Amino acid sequence: MTARISGLILAWFITFAVAVPARALDIDVSEFKLENGLHVIVVPDHRAPIVTHMVWYKVGAADEPKGKAGIAHFLEHLMFKGTAKYPGGAFSHLVRINGGSENAFTTQDYTVYHQRITKERLDLVMELESDRMQNLILTDANVLPELLVVLEERRERIDNNPSSLLGEQITAAMYTAHPYGKPIIGWMSEVLKLTRQDAVDFYRAHYEPANAILLVTGDVTATEVKALATKHYGGLKNLAAPKPRERTAEPQPIAERRVILKDQRVASPFWQRSYLAPAEAKAEGRDALALQVFADIIGSGPRSRLYRKLVIEQKIASQVGTWYSGDGLDYGSFGFYASPNQDVDVAAVEEAIDAVIVEVLKNGVTQDELEMTRNRVIAETVYLLDNQEALARTIGAAIATGQSVKDVLEWDRNIARVTVQDVAKAAQAVLEEENSVTGLLLPAGNARGGADLQPAALDGVQN
Amino acid sequence: MTARISGLILAWFITFAVAVPARALDIDVSEFKLENGLHVIVVPDHRAPIVTHMVWYKVGAADEPKGKAGIAHFLEHLMFKGTAKYPGGAFSHLVRINGGSENAFTTQDYTVYHQRITKERLDLVMELESDRMQNLILTDANVLPELLVVLEERRERIDNNPSSLLGEQITAAMYTAHPYGKPIIGWMSEVLKLTRQDAVDFYRAHYEPANAILLVTGDVTATEVKALATKHYGGLKNLAAPKPRERTAEPQPIAERRVILKDQRVASPFWQRSYLAPAEAKAEGRDALALQVFADIIGSGPRSRLYRKLVIEQKIASQVGTWYSGDGLDYGSFGFYASPNQDVDVAAVEEAIDAVIVEVLKNGVTQDELEMTRNRVIAETVYLLDNQEALARTIGAAIATGQSVKDVLEWDRNIARVTVQDVAKAAQAVLEEENSVTGLLLPAGNARGGADLQPAALDGVQN
Repeated sequence: MTARISGLILAWFITFAVAVPARALDIDVSEFKLENGLHVIVVPDHRAPIVTHMVWYKVGAADEPKGKAGIAHFLEHLMFKGTAKYPGGAFSHLVRINGGSENAFTTQDYTVYHQRITKERLDLVMELESDRMQNLILTDANVLPELLVVLEERRERIDNNPSSLLGEQITAAMYTAHPYGKPIIGWMSEVLKLTRQDAVDFYRAHYEPANAILLVTGDVTATEVKALATKHYGGLKNLAAPKPRERTAEPQPIAERRVILKDQRVASPFWQRSYLAPAEAKAEGRDALALQVFADIIGSGPRSRLYRKLVIEQKIASQVGTWYSGDGLDYGSFGFYASPNQDVDVAAVEEAIDAVIVEVLKNGVTQDELEMTRNRVIAETVYLLDNQEALARTIGAAIATGQSVKDVLEWDRNIARVTVQDVAKAAQAVLEEENSVTGLLLPAGNARGGADLQPAALDGVQN
Repeated sequence: MTARISGLILAWFITFAVAVPARALDIDVSEFKLENGLHVIVVPDHRAPIVTHMVWYKVGAADEPKGKAGIAHFLEHLMFKGTAKYPGGAFSHLVRINGGSENAFTTQDYTVYHQRITKERLDLVMELESDRMQNLILTDANVLPELLVVLEERRERIDNNPSSLLGEQITAAMYTAHPYGKPIIGWMSEVLKLTRQDAVDFYRAHYEPANAILLVTGDVTATEVKALATKHYGGLKNLAAPKPRERTAEPQPIAERRVILKDQRVASPFWQRSYLAPAEAKAEGRDALALQVFADIIGSGPRSRLYRKLVIEQKIASQVGTWYSGDGLDYGSFGFYASPNQDVDVAAVEEAIDAVIVEVLKNGVTQDELEMTRNRVIAETVYLLDNQEALARTIGAAIATGQSVKDVLEWDRNIARVTVQDVAKAAQAVLEEENSVTGLLLPAGNARGGADLQPAALDGVQN
């Protein structure tokens, strides 16, 4: 459906949201499994009579069969095509007339369907979502036209956005073997050949209770959710054999890479660098937490090292920043970006950033920086906990990539344990030049006004 | 078998051999099919009582299933493990005691087994080769230890050779979607998980007469070959359904890429650039021939433009050269390489090469250069026709990638038709910076003597 926000964009949001998990003291999360294996998580939030209902399938673009790039995302679109009980657009119509909103998104690792609605209607959305977990009806007539919608989605969200194109090129250069190098939306040459049968096969292989997480956040109790979940999802069977995820290990990177994209729509240069980094779920010890802290210290906000150096002191960049994206199942990324000021050579900006990196790798961060960052991150958490949907996504992403609810709930306690030594160790391991892909977005001849640059918009494509 | 020369190295040879097809007037090639679909090609060469017997299976590394990287090459190794009739090393033993030599190689597009032996023994090698087309016996005991042989092969041929590593990185950066970006030998994380069943499945799916080419060169007639081929191969059945090759189209390149590899074993820098180019079999009009001519004019030998400019005039490089590799099924590459003289910055060499490229793209090549090149290429053909094995490979590679015997036989006539306009058009289409990956091999700290650099050694990995 064109009206839905694509996972390609949401992934960017998640990149930042992952830094903001629940605080142990505030939330009484419940977790249980139905007999058919459906993993249920309940996150009470009684401030308003609203619920967010999400189903996370543990399958994404990185799990697609050879030659079927884009099938995970395409199936996400097709899940709105109706069942015998709720044909055509009945699902969306019922959600809408009951005052709810709904959406879906696809990442490399999971595919998520969610609704936000008044608490009395949780019964309704469970009825609808459980129905389409196994009763989706796909016909050539409702499948094939959707390929054009995907094509248009790619044009709008990627091809029309030079920084998205740069992100896609950086990601492709980053991964030589692991499927994260393949865009979530797929290679168009393969997408346009996808068939009804491909979608049915993927649906049958992966959409079943034992491969899903039901996450309900909002004004409900675990007891209420358990009763409703059992009523709607409890009767579903697992029809396909469970499959291990087949992911090629990325070989140890050995060469620094660079991607130079010239585009007529770009008015001024943009610089970006990604380093291959561990995923939170697979990082050793406190490495992932340390990278989050390090990203904050070196490049987040006007008191960060990069901002002070490049924007305030040297006045060579209008913006500079960093991210750590670790919510993928297998790998994450640590990134830098900057926009040079007018008439400043992009090479000078890169050099200045490298100087800051070299300095911090040599001398480490300070205890003061560490504490400021901890406090800021924890304070931001409070603010972001107000966002029921962001909270649900953070917990869902963690669980779907192999972390436990405990990992999430103890996040603030764990981040408080990060030391300057942890930060130095984690940063040194990641910020090796052979782990990096540097991307330059440059104006091509015939520039006709700048496109809006979204820093690192697509680096999070692997999330 | 460790004693056999690997396809990874032979591919490099083929890169150059493909420029040297048969000349129409000298060779009376016969071509026919057996009833089971086996495509037979006979190339008489009566100068010595020797034959070269080759079986080309139209399957290679680019046809491997997801998660089974390296299975094509691994199966090539396993084809020497024996059958019920000729168990263990009987095949190789029989060839050897009959005075023959044998080998095999795997490319992205085909897998080839070949023997060179006295003409009286053609009967014997056909008996052996047809037997293992369908009767190979694989057991865990003979399969699993061979994985360590592949691992060692990778170490020897790639990991121990910095320029091979550079070539692998360039190829990985060149292809974002098409399987040519995957090394023929496979990703080690997948290779080490390959099983007996994987090998059996790949063998059953692809090794059969309708998917093979039998090529016999040497002191035989078509009539003799037909009789022997019918005797040995005629009774074989096609057991698997024919499968179309599943190859993702590479998206139109949009960004120049660079790969910088620093290695302690490198004493002095090496520079290389590959452009994505059309394959001969898929090039339009005379584009592939024109690229061959262009490669010769701009960078082959001491009278080429690059050599004169960089080595003789400017004295900044000790070697400089080009290649066009077009014998893949889907894509080829056009490449440049150079070794800077001592104390010359590699960037200066790149700049000088770029200046030559810009000049030739602007002003084209001359009629004189064109004629010198044509004459040299045709003269070299005569010399190389002496090499029965190279000739067989050239014809086999052409047929296996969809060209006809006629294309091969009329090569010298076709190359004589190439005009300066053809060269300009083909070169301009390929030498766009967004089609390119530039690789730098630089000494890392602690240099301890230089490894021998084989220019572009692995760029031909896709052949």
